Parts: sequence; C-alpha cells; structure tokens
Amino acid sequence: MVQIAGETLYVYFLGTAGALPTINRNPSCVMIRRGSDTLLFDCGEGAQQQMMRARTGFTVDAIFITHWHADHYLGVPGLLQTMSFMGRTEPLKIYGPRWVHEFVEYVEGISRTPLGFALQPRELSDGMTVSFDGYHIRAFANRHNTLGLGYILTEDERPGRFDREKAISLGVPPGPLFGCLQRGESVTVEFEGGRREVTADQILGPARPGRKLVYTGDTRPDCRGWAQYAMEADLLIHDATYDDSEAERARDVYHSTAGEAAAVAREIKAHRLALVHISSRYTGTKTHIHDAKEQYEGEVIAPDDLEMIEITYRS
Amino acid sequence: MVQIAGETLYVYFLGTAGALPTINRNPSCVMIRRGSDTLLFDCGEGAQQQMMRARTGFTVDAIFITHWHADHYLGVPGLLQTMSFMGRTEPLKIYGPRWVHEFVEYVEGISRTPLGFALQPRELSDGMTVSFDGYHIRAFANRHNTLGLGYILTEDERPGRFDREKAISLGVPPGPLFGCLQRGESVTVEFEGGRREVTADQILGPARPGRKLVYTGDTRPDCRGWAQYAMEADLLIHDATYDDSEAERARDVYHSTAGEAAAVAREIKAHRLALVHISSRYTGTKTHIHDAKEQYEGEVIAPDDLEMIEITYRS
Repeated sequence: MVQIAGETLYVYFLGTAGALPTINRNPSCVMIRRGSDTLLFDCGEGAQQQMMRARTGFTVDAIFITHWHADHYLGVPGLLQTMSFMGRTEPLKIYGPRWVHEFVEYVEGISRTPLGFALQPRELSDGMTVSFDGYHIRAFANRHNTLGLGYILTEDERPGRFDREKAISLGVPPGPLFGCLQRGESVTVEFEGGRREVTADQILGPARPGRKLVYTGDTRPDCRGWAQYAMEADLLIHDATYDDSEAERARDVYHSTAGEAAAVAREIKAHRLALVHISSRYTGTKTHIHDAKEQYEGEVIAPDDLEMIEITYRS
Repeated sequence: MVQIAGETLYVYFLGTAGALPTINRNPSCVMIRRGSDTLLFDCGEGAQQQMMRARTGFTVDAIFITHWHADHYLGVPGLLQTMSFMGRTEPLKIYGPRWVHEFVEYVEGISRTPLGFALQPRELSDGMTVSFDGYHIRAFANRHNTLGLGYILTEDERPGRFDREKAISLGVPPGPLFGCLQRGESVTVEFEGGRREVTADQILGPARPGRKLVYTGDTRPDCRGWAQYAMEADLLIHDATYDDSEAERARDVYHSTAGEAAAVAREIKAHRLALVHISSRYTGTKTHIHDAKEQYEGEVIAPDDLEMIEITYRS
C-alpha cells in the first residue's frame, strides 16, 4: 500500500530520566504524533503533567510499554483518571510484553474510581506488529534484565515522484486525473479518435521508503535481532543511562553507555540518535554527546524533557 | 507529659491542585516536618519529584492518606520505589481509612520490583489517634462523597515559663539543676545546715499548649464533629476547591469554597488558614483569598506548590 500526502511526524521527549527522576527529568515517556495519531511509548510517573506542559492534549490512541520496571509505567493510572475526568469514552489499547494483562488489572484496582472507558491490554512479543493507518509498530526483544521490548515505527512506502511532463505527454490533462495517478490508480484519457489507459506505473518513479523511528527501551547495545527492520532509521532513541566512563556498570545493570548507543546507531545507519534514560548522577550530557560522537557520524542529541523534534521526509 | 525544648515545625505544600493537576500545581500532598520527624499527608502523583524540588529528602516516617480518590495517593508507588532504590530498609506505616490494606496490596502488586522494606498499612477511623514523640495525630471523619478522614496534629503541652529568679531565691544555683527543673523533675539543694527539695511546680508557670495543625482533606465545610479538638489551631489547611461564585457546584461535588473554608477557620478560631485543592479552572487565587477574608479575620494564604511555612510557638 502507498500513502499519498505526507503526514506530520513529531517526537516529544516527555520523560528522559533514568530509574530515578530528577528535578528536571521525568521518568521515561516518549510521545510520537503522526498526523492525528498519538502514541505513547512508556508512561512514567507524571506523564500527564508533562503532556500539559508540552500542550499535547490527552487524545492518546495507544500506549506501548517496553518493560515492567516502574519508572516506565507508573504514569498510567493518573493519566487514565484524567482522561476519564475529561470525558473519554473511547477504549484505550495498552500494549506491552507479558504481564500487560496483570498490569491493567492492577491499574483498574488501584484507580478505585471506575474509568469511563475500557482498557484493552494486548500482549506483544518479539516480531509482532500492530498496524495503523499508514504505518505499523513492530515489537522486538531488547536485552535488559527483565523481559523487554523495543518498538520500531515504520511508515508505509510513499509513491514515487510524479512525472508531470510525462503525464501531459501521454494526454492526461492537469487536474483531478493527476490525483488519481498519484494515488496509484489508472486513468483513461481520450485522444483523437481513441482512448488510452494510463497507469500510475508509467507516471510515478519507484516507491520511496517512509520514515522510521526506533525506541529501544532499557537495554544493552545489541541490535542483532532487529537491525534488519531498523536500517536507515530516521531516529534511533536509545538507552544511554551512562557515559562511557561507566561502561562496566552499564554492563552489570543491563543498560548502555552513550558510546554503545552510538555504535548501534552506526550499525543500523540511523540518521539521528537521541540519548535517553539519563542517570540522575549526571547534571549535564556533554560527555554523553562527546562519547556518542566518537562512535557515530550522524546527528546526536540528548534531549531535555519537553523537547520536541519534527521528523521530515528525507526524499 | 511535657516536652522540653521547642522543636522546629514546618509545613511544605508539595501539591495544591484539585482533582486535575496543572502545569504549576501537583495533586494533593502536604509534608509536615517536626524536628527530625517527617510525615506526608496525602501523596499525589509526582510527590517524589516535588520532594526533590523542595529538597526535603525521602526519610518519611509515615504517610497519612485522607481518602481513596486517586489524586490523593497515586504518588505512593513511585515514592516507595525511589526509597527502595536509595536503600531504605525501615518499615513504613501507611495510615488511611478503610481500604488501606487493599491499597497497600495494589501498591505492592503494581510495583512489580519488590521493595527493600515492609509496608505496614494501618486503618484509621474517626477519633483514633496515632502517638509520636511529643505529639499525636488524631483522625476525624470529614464530609466528602466517599469515606474520608481529616487529621489534626497536636503537640503535647509545653512546660510553663521557667522563673529563674524564684529558682535562685529557693537556693537552686544556675547550672545543670535548672535543666532538671525545666524537664519537670524535682531537685534537692543544700543550704545552711539542711537540704530542701524544690519541685518543678514551684518554679514553672502553668503548662502552655503545644502547636496544632489541621488538614481536612476533601470535604464540605463542617467541623461539628471535630471542632473541639481543633480549637485555636495554628494552621488550618482546608479544601477550597472553588471560590464563592461556585458555591452550588461545591455543594454538589462535596467540596468547599474559599469562603466556606474561612467560616470553619473562624469557628475553630484558627490563627492561619491555608486554602488548598484549588480547581484547575483557576489561574490565580486572588478571588479565593478575597472570599476567605470576607469570613475570617486571621491570616489567609493560598500557597503555591513548593511553598514552605514555619509554625512558631505563640506563647
């Protein structure tokens, strides 16, 4: 399937802290907004207030949790209460690895006040995908000290470039028929004494890849199981709990250093790397950035909470 | 029992929002710090980050929850995780109305990672007290649309004023014996050819009342059941979800207006009134303050989040 018009694609870093929040960093939460769809990846404590601060509203279509360490999901109960308070009635899907059903039971139990909408837990495992209109989310097994999943958002291919001159030379008049061809349909045009079918293939260049985002969750740097699905990602959001001076500790606790995250970015030829899950021991991220740039030539960012970036088409 | 030296007494307003937090106000949480004791009254989502911002540390001795609406307790799981992460091993008592045992089970269940210390839920009801060194907390039934408790912190009486001249005239030399008398003990002094017992009663004026703080939780204005325990409170922290223009709505949803809170303050002859649980519809509290002052001559404050006030002795 091809998509027609480009959709906006924004990434909001709502929580970039490690296991302990800090005064400036909330626990893990990334919002991805594509067109009118809003997905949350992890939802640490205080996510709802970060959404207020980032002025994103609360119309979340689905929540994806990477793993069951509390800094990745304790914002869910409060967010749901607020959604309910604001009148939401639409069911909400919550995706995550095994225990997602139990999690939703605990959320409902601890919330006490019944929600005005249904929660629909969905267990995912390595290789499963969830389809949305124009893109899909693929879960992959990451490598943490508990069962964990990372997620890859991959857009459907876009149609190739439209060759306007060629369309006109084949007798297609500028106007609505151009739109049909752009959508991949064939059109019939009349010419002196006859009719001709013009197919989209004749007018469109080769399909162009959509955009791709990767969120690893907490993990050691190891993309062997999922690199093939993540190649040339527009953005890799990778665990970078430590700078490279703490490489041993990172290994011990199944996290990554900034340099290790960058090596993964290099391996999958990512175009941009965002370092997140920054340990509370750091007051700045200069060393993280430095260590990452030693390993990787692409753009490296270590976003502050509430930073938002737009992902544009590369072709 | 009398206490000897004055203890510091601080109140931290860590969360002053109504049911919905705002960009500037966290859900309900009040910390009372007396000497080295730290008590939390309610613990809304994000309390742990507010504690970081207020630089209070995490050595909480007990948590008192007023009622089981989620904006009053969803900060507990994350706070406990952080305490555990930081090495706490000391058990933690969590007080609240009926359902506190179930609450603690849900907290343990949703936390997934086991805590490094025990939780000790304790159910309270109207009239029950919890004793601490030098003060006690009394629970009282408030009047909300769910079972709720307010709490009164009352210090033990302080010894009366020490009459230094009289002590000397009775033959007590300035020095360590003064301390004994101040602590309420009797001392024996020698004088020409004899000994005399001097009792504290001879030297100290009448016992002076300790300080008193009241936290109502979410409630209609109605102190009939507890006014006698709250008289002359140094500080009344009262639900003031609305200003007086929303009196009808306040009644409907079992909250109070600022003016209604002030009428309670007047009735119990409180010395200071703090208006909290401010609805997210308000961007300022000028009207709240105005409405309260119409009803009450004492000091009225509507604290911002992270404000701290010291409660000093009045006599």
